[in-house]
Amino acid sequence: MKIAVLPGDGIGTEIVAEAVKVLDALDLKFEMESALVGGAAYDAHGHPLPESTLKLAKEADAILFGAVGDWKYDKLDRPLRPEQAILGLRKNLGLFANFRPAICYEQLVGASSLKPELIAGLDILIIRELTGDIYFGQPRGRREAPDGEFKGAPEAFDTMRYSKPEIERIAHVAFQAARKRNKKVTSVDKANVLETFQFWKDTMIEVHAQYPDVELQHMYVDNAAMQLVKAPKAFDVVVTGNMFGDILSDEASMLTGSIGMLPSASLNAKNQGLYEPSHGSAPDIAGKGIANPLATILSAAMMLRFSLNQEEAAQRIEAAVQKVLAQGLRTGDIWSEGTTKVGTVQMGDAVVKAL
Amino acid sequence: MKIAVLPGDGIGTEIVAEAVKVLDALDLKFEMESALVGGAAYDAHGHPLPESTLKLAKEADAILFGAVGDWKYDKLDRPLRPEQAILGLRKNLGLFANFRPAICYEQLVGASSLKPELIAGLDILIIRELTGDIYFGQPRGRREAPDGEFKGAPEAFDTMRYSKPEIERIAHVAFQAARKRNKKVTSVDKANVLETFQFWKDTMIEVHAQYPDVELQHMYVDNAAMQLVKAPKAFDVVVTGNMFGDILSDEASMLTGSIGMLPSASLNAKNQGLYEPSHGSAPDIAGKGIANPLATILSAAMMLRFSLNQEEAAQRIEAAVQKVLAQGLRTGDIWSEGTTKVGTVQMGDAVVKAL
Ligand SMILES: CC(C)[C@H](C(=O)O)[C@@H](O)C(=O)O
Ligand SMILES: CC(C)[C@H](C(=O)O)[C@@H](O)C(=O)O
Repeated sequence: MKIAVLPGDGIGTEIVAEAVKVLDALDLKFEMESALVGGAAYDAHGHPLPESTLKLAKEADAILFGAVGDWKYDKLDRPLRPEQAILGLRKNLGLFANFRPAICYEQLVGASSLKPELIAGLDILIIRELTGDIYFGQPRGRREAPDGEFKGAPEAFDTMRYSKPEIERIAHVAFQAARKRNKKVTSVDKANVLETFQFWKDTMIEVHAQYPDVELQHMYVDNAAMQLVKAPKAFDVVVTGNMFGDILSDEASMLTGSIGMLPSASLNAKNQGLYEPSHGSAPDIAGKGIANPLATILSAAMMLRFSLNQEEAAQRIEAAVQKVLAQGLRTGDIWSEGTTKVGTVQMGDAVVKAL
Repeated sequence: MKIAVLPGDGIGTEIVAEAVKVLDALDLKFEMESALVGGAAYDAHGHPLPESTLKLAKEADAILFGAVGDWKYDKLDRPLRPEQAILGLRKNLGLFANFRPAICYEQLVGASSLKPELIAGLDILIIRELTGDIYFGQPRGRREAPDGEFKGAPEAFDTMRYSKPEIERIAHVAFQAARKRNKKVTSVDKANVLETFQFWKDTMIEVHAQYPDVELQHMYVDNAAMQLVKAPKAFDVVVTGNMFGDILSDEASMLTGSIGMLPSASLNAKNQGLYEPSHGSAPDIAGKGIANPLATILSAAMMLRFSLNQEEAAQRIEAAVQKVLAQGLRTGDIWSEGTTKVGTVQMGDAVVKAL
């Protein structure tokens, strides 16, 4: 089995190094091969997703990804910017199912913006469709407005779209995930305004007929953004499109106050997957050795579970992370009075020791 | 001067009655005329926005709006559903600038999900473009997928679009509003993915050249959804498109914990405006006499300020609302230990008395 290791930019290299250290310590049989991606790849090869990196990713069983992006690339044309690498990997590998757990660790309740009673014990799973919607819909571009109040004026446009099979496959993923949890799916749409999401809702209802043991609730995206703040624990599995999922999964992560702890997985139909922390490349703290590697280490655990069929090893990592938290070790982002502040490498070492 | 009074559905009639009572008590010279809208209009006339209601709204200087919607209309075809009334009013009257203040009243800090220190003193203004974007963009509908992985499968689609003059006019509104506040505008986009919002960002930068005294910050919508949770007070004026504004303005309202207090205004180029509470029609508590009328009463104050040129009267209402809060009067939604629970009518009476 082969893992493509793509550290990327900013803190990416530092946090991925710790996850690799943890994987190495497990002494399992897999090969790891690294490649440049994002801004780092642009600097070296003139493209954020070079052919060689894409080839490596396609051939691997799983991809361990750090983060991409840095302000210094803001001026590049869009196709050359670091983010295009992650969009390109998603699309080329067909990674349509994005799992974004929002979990509030007992020891970190205090880090949340929310009152402890609202957030303690939070464990929700946002499932975001990742290869469709307005992210990839054609046509898009600039033109003269073809009609309307400002006909003839310069305008820009994009196309939101979902086909039935795309909605069906993500619906199955959500209902099946809910079966292993609390058997409740909230499908988030904007059916009161958008054709795409009326179709989404209709299709969810159809697929739901095959899962009578799972409860299906429908919620408008604006209401979902509110209910996440008001009563996040009322959710179990949330399923939604690419654009709404981008917004809601980030909102949900931030509710926990410890986004530095949250992993993510993006899977295709063959369970090939890309695993990355929910946070970004944080160029402001890159190279300082203070970034929290736990989200990446927990992403490696998800990788073992979903793509490499190593449930036991996944649980060992998760238990080790629990253990270092219980020991009171904290990177700066989750530090609080009475706990011990450690750096990126120390945190990785502690997880290895706790395995 | 003429006010069209459109109470709508659910708690709409109850809360609008209180706002009308407060307006009457001011003894100013304007005419008020009521009409049905939303589900109530559908029941009576077979359409959520009958011609007569639209005519009244167009001829008025301002519209005082309650709320529309009820689950019992969910099965109707989209064009006949209550929400179409509000979309129709926005589009027909060209109400492109939506003002959604998110204010946390001192006495209501405890009602928020957020820790008091994060929310106390919050006073941000979300300005949402309201007549463009994917809400109204054509073409939209269902068809066979013309290309892609599922070519030929049934799909649904919508068009996101913004023309330059549409972005320019909302940019001016935002910069001018910021001048009267803390001189900071955060423009929320998704320029890293969407053509429409790269154009939005470019145009914001262009218009900003005319407002060198105002600071302009750009933020991706997913990050904005996070920063609102993490540090809401870091914002002053937030400006964004119709779809992102729908989500973020609701998220921001809910952060305060007292959405029953938050008014909104939707204006066109002639300062004709529609004024409504930020909350919905709450059919579950309709007819019980317990809904909070303060958001609607404060919407009437905004109406006096923006459309009827009666700043003094607006301030009288706002001061009266502050007074009833200081007196400890609370409807159920904002009630807490030690305060006096009152119903809708009692709350309206108290505001009249406090004028
Ligand atoms: C970098 C960007 C294109 C990306 C997205 O919008 O999907 C990011 O926000 C994410 O959620 O992974
Ligand atoms: C009812 C609905 C169409 C509307 C919208 O999405 O604009 C509502 O959510 C709002 O924000 O006023």
